[in-house]
Amino acid sequence: MTRDELAADVALQQDIESTAHALAEAARAAILPYFRGDALDTIDKGDKIADGGYDPVTVADRAAETAMRAVLAERRPVDAIIGEEHGATPGTSGLTWVLDPIDGTRGFVAGTPTWGVLIACSTATGPVFGMIDQPYIGERFWGGFGQARMQGPQGARALGVKGEGALDAAILFTTFPEVGTAQEGAAFRAVAERVRMVRYGMDCYAYALLAAGQVDLVIEAGLSNYDIQAPIALIEAAGGIVTDWQGGPAHEGGRVIAAAGEAQHDAALQILRQVAG
Amino acid sequence: MTRDELAADVALQQDIESTAHALAEAARAAILPYFRGDALDTIDKGDKIADGGYDPVTVADRAAETAMRAVLAERRPVDAIIGEEHGATPGTSGLTWVLDPIDGTRGFVAGTPTWGVLIACSTATGPVFGMIDQPYIGERFWGGFGQARMQGPQGARALGVKGEGALDAAILFTTFPEVGTAQEGAAFRAVAERVRMVRYGMDCYAYALLAAGQVDLVIEAGLSNYDIQAPIALIEAAGGIVTDWQGGPAHEGGRVIAAAGEAQHDAALQILRQVAG
Repeated sequence: MTRDELAADVALQQDIESTAHALAEAARAAILPYFRGDALDTIDKGDKIADGGYDPVTVADRAAETAMRAVLAERRPVDAIIGEEHGATPGTSGLTWVLDPIDGTRGFVAGTPTWGVLIACSTATGPVFGMIDQPYIGERFWGGFGQARMQGPQGARALGVKGEGALDAAILFTTFPEVGTAQEGAAFRAVAERVRMVRYGMDCYAYALLAAGQVDLVIEAGLSNYDIQAPIALIEAAGGIVTDWQGGPAHEGGRVIAAAGEAQHDAALQILRQVAG
Repeated sequence: MTRDELAADVALQQDIESTAHALAEAARAAILPYFRGDALDTIDKGDKIADGGYDPVTVADRAAETAMRAVLAERRPVDAIIGEEHGATPGTSGLTWVLDPIDGTRGFVAGTPTWGVLIACSTATGPVFGMIDQPYIGERFWGGFGQARMQGPQGARALGVKGEGALDAAILFTTFPEVGTAQEGAAFRAVAERVRMVRYGMDCYAYALLAAGQVDLVIEAGLSNYDIQAPIALIEAAGGIVTDWQGGPAHEGGRVIAAAGEAQHDAALQILRQVAG
């Protein structure tokens, strides 16, 4: 399955979109009983995250991926799956579902409403459809095949990025002030010194806000493929740009910059390259 | 009106609580059309906030305070008012409503769902009732007179803090990594190095999470009275502790620490005193 083949197959596009909504519904039902609940059971999985190695994985995380895999087994048995919790399952269609059942597990444990369920559908060259779902708020952002939309407490609407803007007028988000390694943190701060406003702590929700026209830049490092594939497809469908810090493809993770327009992207990228190499 | 007189007057307590809900409803209706909307008009009010002086005040902010003052003029004309936007209005009852129509204006401008409407009712010795309302999520936390509750997307429930816990197991929140002055930032970081997890960017929502049993500590500096009076009453009603960095009253603002239990409070306070003096 290539992007060109997929672009010509509207029925398949619709099936991918409706399957993504079914996956998000399954994940919501699995996760919400555990959010801020007494059933929360966390296990320390190690040192995956840069600011000290604390990465709880919850029962909800695993239950949601299991629920999503059951939906895919029923609806799209020919597709491959990459999941944060249960690893890779091969397929035959050329499409891969890339799932992060709870992105922002530490925010989840702390009770913030800014974690999300990340669902992407990808070809070999990158994601073609992406969804960020926030079950507690009841808010969902999705995009692909040239369209991006959201539904939430205030109803449904089309999404579009803010567009071109100067770096010194930009709103910049990242999750942790440390960002990544010392060098990556220094590069982030060099950009942060140049923008109008920096905000922290939003996890994947920051990418949804960029697609929704609220935010100019999201810069992160140390990401996995399942952290970024859904945001890439969503933001590209909303008119934005997502690359690595060299301006190349970001769908394998690592250092990522998302931007609402080329002007912000180019200006920030120049600084990131200078400082981080 | 003293706390003892108020403690004996259940009808007045109920009137305060129902008035607070009416205020929150009025503020929601005034604010929501502007959130993530094209009608948003911001004015830079100066250098009130520590991390660079950016403090937008929105049309929504002023409209919400005007709407809340209209409710008070109708329901509680004898009470005084202190509002972030429109200043102080005297009263004769001994009760003062302390209003911050949008706490977290920068989060609001960036589209995050973690700003809130802060409503407190206070005597001369401090707040007796407090409410934090998040209009976009449709989530409300309130407490006073020995009871704390919330209602939100998952329904209504009683609130209670997490209780005693060791500092090295604590979850700590603040809004900006800089926290305040260089000295205040150093004091915060000295505590942050000792806890299990630090999160940023939640504005007043962090205090609501503490009352809801999710968070152990919130540490901030440079607060105004209208920033902290609602969180104080809410958190105290939920069983928690709010003081300044010397362990004294915090209702005039400044340096504030909120804690889920005495153990976390004492341990963090000792560090804050050592570093910040």
